[in-house]
Amino acid sequence: MPEVVFYYFPVKALGESIRLLLAYGGQEFDDRRIPQSEWPAFKPKTPFGQMPVLVIDGKEYAQSLAISRYLGNKYGVAGDSLEDNLEIDQNVDLINDLRAKAAVVQYEPDETVKEAKYADFVKNVFPDLLEKLSAIFVKNNGHVALGKLTWGDFVFAGMFDYLKMMLRMPDLEKKYPVFQQVIDNVYSIPKVKAYADAAPPSDI
Amino acid sequence: MPEVVFYYFPVKALGESIRLLLAYGGQEFDDRRIPQSEWPAFKPKTPFGQMPVLVIDGKEYAQSLAISRYLGNKYGVAGDSLEDNLEIDQNVDLINDLRAKAAVVQYEPDETVKEAKYADFVKNVFPDLLEKLSAIFVKNNGHVALGKLTWGDFVFAGMFDYLKMMLRMPDLEKKYPVFQQVIDNVYSIPKVKAYADAAPPSDI
Repeated sequence: MPEVVFYYFPVKALGESIRLLLAYGGQEFDDRRIPQSEWPAFKPKTPFGQMPVLVIDGKEYAQSLAISRYLGNKYGVAGDSLEDNLEIDQNVDLINDLRAKAAVVQYEPDETVKEAKYADFVKNVFPDLLEKLSAIFVKNNGHVALGKLTWGDFVFAGMFDYLKMMLRMPDLEKKYPVFQQVIDNVYSIPKVKAYADAAPPSDI
Repeated sequence: MPEVVFYYFPVKALGESIRLLLAYGGQEFDDRRIPQSEWPAFKPKTPFGQMPVLVIDGKEYAQSLAISRYLGNKYGVAGDSLEDNLEIDQNVDLINDLRAKAAVVQYEPDETVKEAKYADFVKNVFPDLLEKLSAIFVKNNGHVALGKLTWGDFVFAGMFDYLKMMLRMPDLEKKYPVFQQVIDNVYSIPKVKAYADAAPPSDI
């Protein structure tokens, strides 16, 4: 079994899909949770000045979705054809569009601009993307794509609490019950559940 | 040969990598360039309310990078292993981080906010990402990843003029000569050159 070390902040957010996929694949890993206070010193040591970083037998990889896609293919939760993989990728990218739009608001440093942007997006951007994602997941029987478990489900489940925080929608899964279905389809897998039960708690 | 229709605005931007890859693959395609004036009527007919859209034998696909990855794999300009594909994906996602940051400025509707954000990003965000990308491409001998031609090169080459416009850096390739190398490595391919020479001109 390869030696795997995973570096991310002590939250789920953009790192959890990778932790969940490693657990799913039965891959032991050193789960290094870097607190914000240590990040400035650690940042220059990372390949892109970003986390997450996954180190496999000494080789470093960056970018949350790229790593999740890799692990999905490695552990057999990807498509069986190029067209199937395209369907996963496009749906994951739509999830990521919502995440990125929410992040534009969340990380806006000017409070006035931030609130004006939230008021705009909560009316003109978020509802449409949420409706589209919900319709896609319903069509796929509680999955992100292909009507079955794929790494896309791990991406959505892993970032859901973070997404809800940024969207300021604590009851999001009540409005869109299929979101909870996607999450349950991931966290009910015994190896994933065992990891999640033992993991340090995190609100986002 | 499958029937392929491609829908995008009459610019390169996020659509050109797909056109270039189709040309590279020798795939004939109906290159539908939808003017802004027709977009509001067309938008609800697209799968995600977005362009580009690629239609293959009647099946519609969305998302620029997902489609580019698909075509790259289809036409043999991808990695030979999961690890190689991860390297392409992570580097493409770093290009996309720069594109997304530039777009946050470009599409900010409030002029005062836009200019403040540009002043911030041109100092604190863009240089670091440009330096990192340049170093990666140099390490890869004028390519985005793996030291050879991959679909990542098509992504960068296709969006370069759009990126320069958003960054307001018309001489970007003079400051980072390796960017021009990546572009030349794509556009010097005879089938790509033939497409580009015949394509409608576009500044971005």
